Amino acid sequence: MKLTIKSLPIFALMAVMFSGCNNSKSPNGNRGALASTAAEKVYVPPGEHDEFYAFFSGGYSGNLTVYGLPSGRMFKEIPVFSQFPTNGYGYSEETKPMLNTSHGFIPWDDLHHPDISQTDGKLDGRWIFVNGNNTPRIARIDLKTFETDEIIEVPNSAGNHSSSFVTENTEYVVAGTRFSVPVPQKDISIKEYRGNFKGALSFIEVAPETGRMNLKFQIMMPGFDYDLSHPGRGKSHGWFFFTTYNTEEANTLLEVNASQNDKDFIAAVNWKKIEEYINNGGGTKMPAEYAHNVYDHSTHSAKSTIKKEVLMVDPTKVPGAVFLLPTPKSPHGCDVDPTGKYIIGNGKLSADLTIHSFGKMIAAIEAEKFDGDAYGIPILKFEDVLAGQVKSGGLGPLHTEFDGKGNAYTTFFISSELVKWNVETREVIDRQPNYYSVGHVMIPGGNSAAPFGKYAVAMNKITKDRYLPTGPELEHSAQLFDISGEKMELLLDFPTHGEPHYAAGIPAEILAPESQKIYRLEDNKHEFAALGGDETRVERHGNEVHVYMSMIRSHFTPDNIEGIRVGDKVYFHITNHEQDFDVPHGFAMIGANNAELLIMPGQTRTLVWEPGQVGVWPFYCTDFCSALHQEMQGYVRVSPANSDIKLSWSLGE
Amino acid sequence: MKLTIKSLPIFALMAVMFSGCNNSKSPNGNRGALASTAAEKVYVPPGEHDEFYAFFSGGYSGNLTVYGLPSGRMFKEIPVFSQFPTNGYGYSEETKPMLNTSHGFIPWDDLHHPDISQTDGKLDGRWIFVNGNNTPRIARIDLKTFETDEIIEVPNSAGNHSSSFVTENTEYVVAGTRFSVPVPQKDISIKEYRGNFKGALSFIEVAPETGRMNLKFQIMMPGFDYDLSHPGRGKSHGWFFFTTYNTEEANTLLEVNASQNDKDFIAAVNWKKIEEYINNGGGTKMPAEYAHNVYDHSTHSAKSTIKKEVLMVDPTKVPGAVFLLPTPKSPHGCDVDPTGKYIIGNGKLSADLTIHSFGKMIAAIEAEKFDGDAYGIPILKFEDVLAGQVKSGGLGPLHTEFDGKGNAYTTFFISSELVKWNVETREVIDRQPNYYSVGHVMIPGGNSAAPFGKYAVAMNKITKDRYLPTGPELEHSAQLFDISGEKMELLLDFPTHGEPHYAAGIPAEILAPESQKIYRLEDNKHEFAALGGDETRVERHGNEVHVYMSMIRSHFTPDNIEGIRVGDKVYFHITNHEQDFDVPHGFAMIGANNAELLIMPGQTRTLVWEPGQVGVWPFYCTDFCSALHQEMQGYVRVSPANSDIKLSWSLGE
Repeated sequence: MKLTIKSLPIFALMAVMFSGCNNSKSPNGNRGALASTAAEKVYVPPGEHDEFYAFFSGGYSGNLTVYGLPSGRMFKEIPVFSQFPTNGYGYSEETKPMLNTSHGFIPWDDLHHPDISQTDGKLDGRWIFVNGNNTPRIARIDLKTFETDEIIEVPNSAGNHSSSFVTENTEYVVAGTRFSVPVPQKDISIKEYRGNFKGALSFIEVAPETGRMNLKFQIMMPGFDYDLSHPGRGKSHGWFFFTTYNTEEANTLLEVNASQNDKDFIAAVNWKKIEEYINNGGGTKMPAEYAHNVYDHSTHSAKSTIKKEVLMVDPTKVPGAVFLLPTPKSPHGCDVDPTGKYIIGNGKLSADLTIHSFGKMIAAIEAEKFDGDAYGIPILKFEDVLAGQVKSGGLGPLHTEFDGKGNAYTTFFISSELVKWNVETREVIDRQPNYYSVGHVMIPGGNSAAPFGKYAVAMNKITKDRYLPTGPELEHSAQLFDISGEKMELLLDFPTHGEPHYAAGIPAEILAPESQKIYRLEDNKHEFAALGGDETRVERHGNEVHVYMSMIRSHFTPDNIEGIRVGDKVYFHITNHEQDFDVPHGFAMIGANNAELLIMPGQTRTLVWEPGQVGVWPFYCTDFCSALHQEMQGYVRVSPANSDIKLSWSLGE
Repeated sequence: MKLTIKSLPIFALMAVMFSGCNNSKSPNGNRGALASTAAEKVYVPPGEHDEFYAFFSGGYSGNLTVYGLPSGRMFKEIPVFSQFPTNGYGYSEETKPMLNTSHGFIPWDDLHHPDISQTDGKLDGRWIFVNGNNTPRIARIDLKTFETDEIIEVPNSAGNHSSSFVTENTEYVVAGTRFSVPVPQKDISIKEYRGNFKGALSFIEVAPETGRMNLKFQIMMPGFDYDLSHPGRGKSHGWFFFTTYNTEEANTLLEVNASQNDKDFIAAVNWKKIEEYINNGGGTKMPAEYAHNVYDHSTHSAKSTIKKEVLMVDPTKVPGAVFLLPTPKSPHGCDVDPTGKYIIGNGKLSADLTIHSFGKMIAAIEAEKFDGDAYGIPILKFEDVLAGQVKSGGLGPLHTEFDGKGNAYTTFFISSELVKWNVETREVIDRQPNYYSVGHVMIPGGNSAAPFGKYAVAMNKITKDRYLPTGPELEHSAQLFDISGEKMELLLDFPTHGEPHYAAGIPAEILAPESQKIYRLEDNKHEFAALGGDETRVERHGNEVHVYMSMIRSHFTPDNIEGIRVGDKVYFHITNHEQDFDVPHGFAMIGANNAELLIMPGQTRTLVWEPGQVGVWPFYCTDFCSALHQEMQGYVRVSPANSDIKLSWSLGE
């Protein structure tokens, strides 16, 4: 045990000096209760593990990154919406279907808001949901394998920003359009925006056992911009809250034209009421084209299906289902406290923070105290739903998270600070500057009924001089705070990969024991797997050639192939026969117009190669796998298109 | 200043207790001379900077990653050989030509060995060179902008592993083929390997001012596998050394068949002699097709040229140019000490480490003490060139680096350890276990005449339980050692991105002051740039539409575009008008079949969009740029193919 001077009164120090210096088990500092310096608090000694997983949105990387807290080390980048040359995601035949959409193959998206599945309002660690903002999609990532298992496109939407957040028991994962568009799409002048453009909110049900997603219904809302959302919980379970901006319905120069109204709205949606409505036959089926892509871990392959219909709900036809809560001004984050009593509207052009009361909202609804309507949707009165405001919190509030001890933590972009305040009294307790221009904040479980209020991570939008310079393009930056005490303590700056918009944290003890190590060969149902050595072979079907190949330390079977011709389309179906943890093999073919394959133990992957030139061309293993890794190679002989060289293959001959 | 108990004798501690506790300037630990715990040694407090840059090869990511030492934080991923959805590299029109090859567009490669440019054998920090292993290429990255400026394909090669290392004054960057192939390629049975397959070594000259690369000559060597290489320096300047394996010339099951010979070779190449030979008209011009891709920072665009010829040198025609040094067994790393006196052959299936003497080699050559030849290339006698061996160093030596204080650090893959030994006495000084199965080791400047021997980073191939588990696929792992003392001290485990094969480190003070912050708008010579507001416009040429767009906080000009038709090919040429550091903007178009554009201040980028559906479709800025970032959006109206809607564009109307 290492103790530092600052942390101890002299008597304790003397006692340690004469009795305790040599009973150390950890020579490299200490992260326990007595760790006192920031250095010690964030240091995870070699061989020890972080306390929390933190899943950071990659933003424009399209991927999800996995970090450890408190160390700030990145353990993995999980490809979701973007091609990932590193392991062939989006290049291999098995994974290409994951990126299919109604617009065809889309190799990129802008991944924003991760949310971990919940049971009874608590993180259950089964799946994590993320949204694609650009070509609207929701993805589900399995937290046993850390792989993207499912992607569903969201029709009638554009700029899928206010997602992907789950209800208290993961009944639904919810999405909302940021850009309103004609629904259905049509050839109409942009200047006809007002009244003609609509904003769809989408409720995607999640199968309790499998996690499988199904777009249950959409709500056709006015043509505002829907920014963020959060579920009700506890007493507000059954409701979902969405911030709106551009209630001005401007279609150009929004930085001016969408900043005119003193108040925009939080839309409160009683989804249980809508569920009841559609279960009784409510809603209208409308044509809509959207992709549903599902990855199957037994076939190690994804399939894409195009769906053709969606159930649309007109909120004005469902009394009591949707209400608008006036909220200053251009609110961005829409956050619900762990008790479900308060809805915080973070008015991004405001100095004050608005806290709505769920109880007052219900009372106002029951009393029918409305202040007009917007396209038929009742507007409540600001003062009737307001619980109170945090005054002088800062400037430009964006997002709020909670520590489970009655405190809220709000980021202020313009004044660049993280502000801690008491949810009930709304008094400011502490404020810490952020370097620079903070966007989201994350506390593990901070968007649930049961946060783990030990650390807060501020995700900053501007980096400038925080790290060694790397030319004009910089990574974004996160700051880790210890929030276990009354005052926040800045511990660490660490760079993030892509542009994090929100993150989701969870204690390691929930996920780590469930983490899968290999795929069992005996469970491999891939159509083209070569499971036994005798199944390795090469087959020609016209100009399609299928190579059934296996790999094990340190050779491919077969490793010499002849009889391939220019103009052939060669499918290398390769099965990794290893059954030990952390023994992947890679496969690369010179001149291939895609990427490598990185193949996990027990898995099968397929690379297509269309040889354009006569010659003898090598392939090799890309992942250093043994002392004889450099010997793990092979050759393919490519003959002219009209050659009569017979197909042959061998190993060791 | 924070001091810990362990570091101080009691008297000193008492003195501090009563006099020194309050004179602290850094509340968060201390990295200075008195930092005593590993935690403090690796901790870089918020706002402070790391001491070294470390450039890690991304291996199968195809990219180069930039870390700080001692913190182990990743600051950037520089796209080189792979498409990078994060910023549109390989998707934007300006960057696609960077990935062109004689095989067409290749969106991936396997990036292995970074090497920083040198002057007088010392790191000069101008450029860093890296190799693509799969479809043989060398790239040059500018260390002012941290962008890939140039990629040259290497013809007559396959598995470009033994590169990219530079000579003492960056006269050349050198490459060597790992897989021998027919040269030129031809339709020949793989079984005809022996004698018919050849291994090309490539010398690419580097223009002293611009860094521009030109393939000066290739040497047609026997059909071995060329594994790694390093330049001579000091007295051995003018020579280059390449390890070989598979001198058995096996073509199948190499893990067995290429491990038969007791000794393979290190090939010593006197490139100055060959330079003289070709300057006198030596060598044979042979047809060869290879791409040369150059990025121009004034046009912000890359151009690809296909070259058609290479100068080939037959080493048997140049007396005194190439010799073979027998080296046990299947040597992998080929490392030259800072003085240039010793060449270390790391026989990967050996227990001992072989150190050849440059002086003894020269003497043996001058005495013509040869032991036969291989395809006409003289073989020297092992005992004539041997300086000595490190006995019981470990098992499976792979790579060696140097600290500039007379010590070498060798990794042993099989026994999984880093071993420090004295270069002159060859005595082992210290050994530290690695977790697990170490490949390369890097000391900043460790491959130069003047290493900075403060830290060593071991890059490990197996990760297993070093971090929180993330399913079957794991990141690789690095370990940071303090090597400033007699014994090495393990400081930190940190994960790496992709699979690092080697790294190159350099003191921050060399690079940081030169780092570029923005691109000046006035220097922007992009053909389609809209530099003034009045240059923004939309032009139709048949079904090609060119949008000349600008972006500045927080709007696009124009942001409403009409008159686009289904079937059009729309080129968005977008210029970022910001001139402040760290204010990039992004551009994303719903349904685009490529990626986003991330555009630095002063830069122009082009995205192609081929709208397939009638409707009104949004675009937006993907990089949170201001309090009104969410308002930075626009719409494009897409009409049917036969529509007569006139082209129009506007902002704020």
